[in-house]
Amino acid sequence: MGAVHVDISISLDGFAAGPNQSAEHPLGEGGEQLHEWAYPLRTFEEMHGRDGGETGTDDDVLAETYEALGAVVMGRKMFGPSGDWDPDWGGWWGEDPPFGGPVFVLTHHSREPLEKGSTTFHFVTEGIDTAIEGARDVAGEKNVLVAGGASAIQQSLLAGHVDEIQVHVTPVLLGGGARLFEGIGPELELEKVRAIGSPSVTHLKYRVSK
Amino acid sequence: MGAVHVDISISLDGFAAGPNQSAEHPLGEGGEQLHEWAYPLRTFEEMHGRDGGETGTDDDVLAETYEALGAVVMGRKMFGPSGDWDPDWGGWWGEDPPFGGPVFVLTHHSREPLEKGSTTFHFVTEGIDTAIEGARDVAGEKNVLVAGGASAIQQSLLAGHVDEIQVHVTPVLLGGGARLFEGIGPELELEKVRAIGSPSVTHLKYRVSK
Repeated sequence: MGAVHVDISISLDGFAAGPNQSAEHPLGEGGEQLHEWAYPLRTFEEMHGRDGGETGTDDDVLAETYEALGAVVMGRKMFGPSGDWDPDWGGWWGEDPPFGGPVFVLTHHSREPLEKGSTTFHFVTEGIDTAIEGARDVAGEKNVLVAGGASAIQQSLLAGHVDEIQVHVTPVLLGGGARLFEGIGPELELEKVRAIGSPSVTHLKYRVSK
Repeated sequence: MGAVHVDISISLDGFAAGPNQSAEHPLGEGGEQLHEWAYPLRTFEEMHGRDGGETGTDDDVLAETYEALGAVVMGRKMFGPSGDWDPDWGGWWGEDPPFGGPVFVLTHHSREPLEKGSTTFHFVTEGIDTAIEGARDVAGEKNVLVAGGASAIQQSLLAGHVDEIQVHVTPVLLGGGARLFEGIGPELELEKVRAIGSPSVTHLKYRVSK
């Protein structure tokens, strides 16, 4: 069976999204800076159906996450905004989302699965345990990625599902927003696996002690 | 003229001290874990007048901070507890504190300088600007270290004194306490200098853009 991984970009002050998240600012004010390290990379281009892009340490790290990926779990805000919930609406991710497989979306609104390119969104109203279970089932030997946002990750950590956490620490202070580790305390014991990176980001990986 | 450095250990969730700081728990509950990486090191032993200790990357980083050190600035809580302020009392640091030079303590209580071994504590009641200025004057070509706690560091950052920040990120979650970057926002622009470390800690160094 595969493992359950958390993998997310954060600011140096620990935010996974900036303040005042909205349809206009899905990542909060300033939040898009957290992901800038990934945009020039070859794996990022590949995930978006394009050629080219930079190789190197950052690209190796990004590629590693997506190579062994069997299914994704995400919160509703990462799928799309809450206002004007439209059953036909496809979320933030366009006609060919970069996940290339099954994505389990935590939501309070039940909805039929939604196919977009090679990605299928499954909407789970029964909570994190059911979402992880569904993802594990389809992932088989591959890994499940809890991709965000902060709340979905916190739920998966508190429920004891996570084997490994990778945070991509960017040299940015957001000063407000969604704290990745809000409500998670010393009960979660971590063991450092590695720290690598480039001038624009540091990739810290930890194993969760069980 | 030397530079002004911040150098402090933090938890992965961004705390420089744990919750409920007291005379019994000067670093807050669980806070002593933030510093465990340093205890076995040769430089730490040397600073405390002892022989032996481990060498390697972590020791090189610690040695680098203390080699070019001309003066230290710290908050009152880092010097000693607030209750029963006793003008004869020497603070947390014993008869031979590890600073080996002038230390400027931010406090609301004026007090004569206090000599302890090779360390002299100067008590500054006029605020962070005066403390940094006094430290810079005696440091000359050497560096000023703003050693903690979180509040002293925040004051020095907000007043624009800091040239470089080094955080030692430990694989610990404290879940509460003093957040290093509380109240510091996106106005503080950082440039990553390096990330190095060992299994027990990651040393992240950033330059403050001015």
